[in-house]
Amino acid sequence: MSDPNHRLDRLLSPSSIAVVGASDKPGRIGTMVYENVIRAFAGPVYPVNPRGTMLAGRQAATSIDALPYGVDLAIVIVPAEQVVAAIEQCAANGVGGVTLLSSGFSEIGPEGAAVQAELREVVERTGIPVIGPNCIGFMNLHGGVMANFALPHTTELPVPGPVALVSQSGGFGSYITTKSLLTGVKLGWFVSTGNEVDVNIAEVLASLVERDEVKVLLVFSETLRDPDVFIGAARRAAELDKPIVLLKAGRSEEAARAAMSHTASIVGSAAVLDAVCRQYGVIVVDTMEEMLDLGLIFQDGRRARGSRIGIMTSSGGAGVLLADCAAAEGLTVPSIPERERAAIEAMMPRPFYGSVENPVDTTAQLTANATTYQQVLNALVAVDELDVFTTVTWAQPGPSNDAILSTYRNSTKPLAVLSTGYLAEFHEAGVPTYLDPRRAVHALSAVTKFSRRPALDPAPEATPAADLTAARALVARAEGRGLLLESDSKELLARYGGAITRERTVADAEEAVRAAREIGGAVALKAMSYQLPHKSDVGAIRLNLRTADEVRDAYDSMLLEVAERAPHAKVESVLVQQMVPARLELTCGLQRDPVFGAVVAVGLGGTTIEIMAAAELLHVPFGHAVAERTIRGMLGGRLVNAARGLDDAEVDQLADLMVSLGRLAVDLPEVVEVDVNPVRVSDGQAVAADALVVLAAVDPV
Amino acid sequence: MSDPNHRLDRLLSPSSIAVVGASDKPGRIGTMVYENVIRAFAGPVYPVNPRGTMLAGRQAATSIDALPYGVDLAIVIVPAEQVVAAIEQCAANGVGGVTLLSSGFSEIGPEGAAVQAELREVVERTGIPVIGPNCIGFMNLHGGVMANFALPHTTELPVPGPVALVSQSGGFGSYITTKSLLTGVKLGWFVSTGNEVDVNIAEVLASLVERDEVKVLLVFSETLRDPDVFIGAARRAAELDKPIVLLKAGRSEEAARAAMSHTASIVGSAAVLDAVCRQYGVIVVDTMEEMLDLGLIFQDGRRARGSRIGIMTSSGGAGVLLADCAAAEGLTVPSIPERERAAIEAMMPRPFYGSVENPVDTTAQLTANATTYQQVLNALVAVDELDVFTTVTWAQPGPSNDAILSTYRNSTKPLAVLSTGYLAEFHEAGVPTYLDPRRAVHALSAVTKFSRRPALDPAPEATPAADLTAARALVARAEGRGLLLESDSKELLARYGGAITRERTVADAEEAVRAAREIGGAVALKAMSYQLPHKSDVGAIRLNLRTADEVRDAYDSMLLEVAERAPHAKVESVLVQQMVPARLELTCGLQRDPVFGAVVAVGLGGTTIEIMAAAELLHVPFGHAVAERTIRGMLGGRLVNAARGLDDAEVDQLADLMVSLGRLAVDLPEVVEVDVNPVRVSDGQAVAADALVVLAAVDPV
Repeated sequence: MSDPNHRLDRLLSPSSIAVVGASDKPGRIGTMVYENVIRAFAGPVYPVNPRGTMLAGRQAATSIDALPYGVDLAIVIVPAEQVVAAIEQCAANGVGGVTLLSSGFSEIGPEGAAVQAELREVVERTGIPVIGPNCIGFMNLHGGVMANFALPHTTELPVPGPVALVSQSGGFGSYITTKSLLTGVKLGWFVSTGNEVDVNIAEVLASLVERDEVKVLLVFSETLRDPDVFIGAARRAAELDKPIVLLKAGRSEEAARAAMSHTASIVGSAAVLDAVCRQYGVIVVDTMEEMLDLGLIFQDGRRARGSRIGIMTSSGGAGVLLADCAAAEGLTVPSIPERERAAIEAMMPRPFYGSVENPVDTTAQLTANATTYQQVLNALVAVDELDVFTTVTWAQPGPSNDAILSTYRNSTKPLAVLSTGYLAEFHEAGVPTYLDPRRAVHALSAVTKFSRRPALDPAPEATPAADLTAARALVARAEGRGLLLESDSKELLARYGGAITRERTVADAEEAVRAAREIGGAVALKAMSYQLPHKSDVGAIRLNLRTADEVRDAYDSMLLEVAERAPHAKVESVLVQQMVPARLELTCGLQRDPVFGAVVAVGLGGTTIEIMAAAELLHVPFGHAVAERTIRGMLGGRLVNAARGLDDAEVDQLADLMVSLGRLAVDLPEVVEVDVNPVRVSDGQAVAADALVVLAAVDPV
Repeated sequence: MSDPNHRLDRLLSPSSIAVVGASDKPGRIGTMVYENVIRAFAGPVYPVNPRGTMLAGRQAATSIDALPYGVDLAIVIVPAEQVVAAIEQCAANGVGGVTLLSSGFSEIGPEGAAVQAELREVVERTGIPVIGPNCIGFMNLHGGVMANFALPHTTELPVPGPVALVSQSGGFGSYITTKSLLTGVKLGWFVSTGNEVDVNIAEVLASLVERDEVKVLLVFSETLRDPDVFIGAARRAAELDKPIVLLKAGRSEEAARAAMSHTASIVGSAAVLDAVCRQYGVIVVDTMEEMLDLGLIFQDGRRARGSRIGIMTSSGGAGVLLADCAAAEGLTVPSIPERERAAIEAMMPRPFYGSVENPVDTTAQLTANATTYQQVLNALVAVDELDVFTTVTWAQPGPSNDAILSTYRNSTKPLAVLSTGYLAEFHEAGVPTYLDPRRAVHALSAVTKFSRRPALDPAPEATPAADLTAARALVARAEGRGLLLESDSKELLARYGGAITRERTVADAEEAVRAAREIGGAVALKAMSYQLPHKSDVGAIRLNLRTADEVRDAYDSMLLEVAERAPHAKVESVLVQQMVPARLELTCGLQRDPVFGAVVAVGLGGTTIEIMAAAELLHVPFGHAVAERTIRGMLGGRLVNAARGLDDAEVDQLADLMVSLGRLAVDLPEVVEVDVNPVRVSDGQAVAADALVVLAAVDPV
């Protein structure tokens, strides 16, 4: 695929538009789209219609061949069986790109899938960019392009705004578009991608993120193709300070089944998608309302210096509830510094029944007093030690609303208003308005987090050639047996910088005794065999050996027991391993997701592993800083901050281990899975005490 | 306090009303309230005003003394300094109860608190029920009582509905009332309790829950007094099949600080309140919108047989998102049985681009076809294997909305509609309408859970007198020393039916050896001393002793070490205790909350205790079934369902242990705290391996 920025330019920002299947019969999609196009577009519009009639003052061409060469955008609305020919003609006539609104493709089953395959063949052969099929079109209000039937042509054309919405689903995308207009989210773009025979959400995002007029990107997706393009777009968005907010449908198994039947595509793991988004700064939301709530707070482009919220209400109860919301959302509600508080107090009427602490409770005493209300609100928003603000109002014009409006306009700090309903004057001025306290505070919290996000790390450096050669040699020891011995698995980790137990492989009992002495302290013995990836089941492990006699006896008895219980197993060597104490046991692993590729997981281990089910994922590649941030965020920060939690040195070693797994995943595509369990943590160390590397092509025993 | 049902009857359902402080000056509270009263009330209304003017056609009395004797309700709106005299006069004149709207009491600080104390004295002495002060009044639409300024008298009087709202905060209560009307929640009652000098939220709930016209109770509270009355009301609500939905402000520390400064009252622990609510079936919500969302779904009184949802949309994307929401909310999206599915398929147009699986995706093909839309929706709702339903529409009159309306009216199954906005026709018919997919499904899930709630257990039976005497004798052994020895602590647990380790106290080494032999297996020795509640710090414990020699040696060396490291400690005896294996370690404890009293906590133990911070609380008293349900719900069910989780026998024993703690809390008020740590779990047993009972009056060492 060529550079998406240029590939979609003519399609998304056309200078001329053809509407293939334009009509004037009421209720037809061809009519709705054609009317939408001509009411909004300043350039030439060419209707195409087999009957060649006059359509709203323009003579329809009877075929695509009859159009002038090189129209930028063709909107195609013809029956499914005519689509392939139409696209072929568009390509032949130099059309810059197609939005294909027709249905009847893979969404209807095998029959439709066959037509879609033909369509894909034409697209790939000719290289013409196609959005759709089975989509509702797109809207570029900045360019006057209403190539859709998402909004009825009879409604008012929205004012172009800084928010772009990208949705696979046409129907629900149109629903969200309508909701956006009602809630005050100012859309400039809406693109629906439908079945994605060619252009997908990732490519659209990569194109829109580069446009100056786009400041916020909202995404509703059911499946995600092209993870590299998606990650590239996310990186660009972070660089350009443009938030991407993603609502993903098809998270649950049941919903994924519905999504597959409906879009006929593979749905990746929701957990991996979440991890990728967190890693590259994409904000994942749970609900449609949350997506719009964030669109609303981000569209004015304000950023927050910190997470300290100032609250002003006319009801003590609302103030308490908002303070709760702030705490739940990770914001603080600091006291107002003495001088400012005294100044605010001096503004209040006497007697005053409210509070000049934060939350400021004006009571109903101030609601009718516009001047004082305005002064107090201005004074609060001016407090240097406060970063974001919320206040409460009623959805009716009045002096306090005038005051809010004026304060909003005169400040550059984020402000979210809680209101009983939407107010036209707020809507017009862009004052973010919310109908629930939690939602107002959540939006402010999102701005705070986005404003203070860590810079994205550069991708880690490539492994030096010598190290890579050594690593490959280690992997080659498997000789096609589908897994590495524990000793080789740990050596591989160590080569990539992961900390492992002190250990050595030996060939007889005396060598084991010598090795134990050099290692020091208590040791374990483990029988290494390609046939025994799970050692404890057959007695291939002896723990806590302290003396030479114990080592010698254990060596012999272990090999005897293995020979008896696993006669098929060939023992290659015996591993003598340091016993390390463990205040905590963790696990660490590498997996490969069918959509996103390699991910490294880290979680609690030991006996509680299944009960806690608390793991974090990182998408490969990543560096030490990202790994460390992930560890520090685990279990709400408690893995590090709780009594008996990880100390700095342990975090550092654990991060090294995660990085080592990520790096070997990049270098060694034949490694399909690594399981490091347990990672034993104590006394400033986090050490791999067991590890299993699984290789491709041969199933592990 | 007398029976709340009768105590508030005259106040809340008056036959006559006096408005003390009635006015006709625009903008005054006295005017707003008086106008509200006379526009709604059918019985006699008596304005009181020192000037004795005519007010809206009625002659004002110049004082309360001048009123007819025995007016049912007096609404008092006079300056704070006149309030005490006014209440005194009301009581003397046989007034049935007062709603006191005046401000200037404890909410403004020490000065106001003094006035409130005087007020409390009058109320207690005269026994007159008073709601307020610092409240916004109340609304009883069924009785025509608008004793409030929550709704402006200039707006239309709402139609009486089945929902009652009780709020401590007047301002935010009024806000919620307004939002209710906008979202279609049909209020019949709104009561604000303000500073609660007398009547509090719990008492109001206890009164309202008994009224036939009240079907749903919504509560917004900052503090909760009278936990017994609250729990009594919750029990009655459960019996009468009336949901109580509670939004609690002041959960976070910062918010609690604001709540205390604003209402000048003690705020109990939010975690304990949550536990109480869960235990007695009160639904705790996180946001105002969620409270109204549930009011909306509950007000039509429909109940669900199961948790199987049927979804119908005109957009595949919306269907996938709704299926996700269903999974997240614990609902299932089953397939439609073959026969019904075939019938639905036969109704669809040809070619059909959608799906007749659940979620049913009609595509836009059906939106304009009212008859088919109606048939399909009716057929779906009629499916026996589906219990609750959601469908999607746009907020504009049209054939699909007519169909939805008709289906709703002809079915008794719960139905929640997702819409771009509110529709007057839905509002009027009571069709629950939601603006976000998750919220619609969450509401249906709440109905499902409420419909299928377990019956509340009766309170456990009292301890037989003999057992109680024995328990008291055990506690008496402390002789004022503030704690029980571990051996006595465990004996006390065992008396109440908790499982403990096999163990025995001994006085010398040879007795220890004999005890160890009888106990069998490995044993531990522990030195029992009132000065050593934390034994391991001073070497007062020896583990894993297997032979007579080991026991003998350990006995002597332990006592030597204790004598050296804790010379102040008097060793009363030595405990010989069975070593029990542990697949899992848990903790269990008893605490006493300042507001709600005794609670039993159970959580994960061992090294991960601080990291996981996952504990559940149960309010005392409770029975075995409640304890078992709590254990089975821990960590999202994983404590029981995960590999290595608890088996049935272990759950049973752990529940016994929790019940034993609850029962001793009831019997022995001098027990302020019990800490059982660890509870060791393995092989079908959950056994207290250590326990400490802390007693009142003397601080533990």
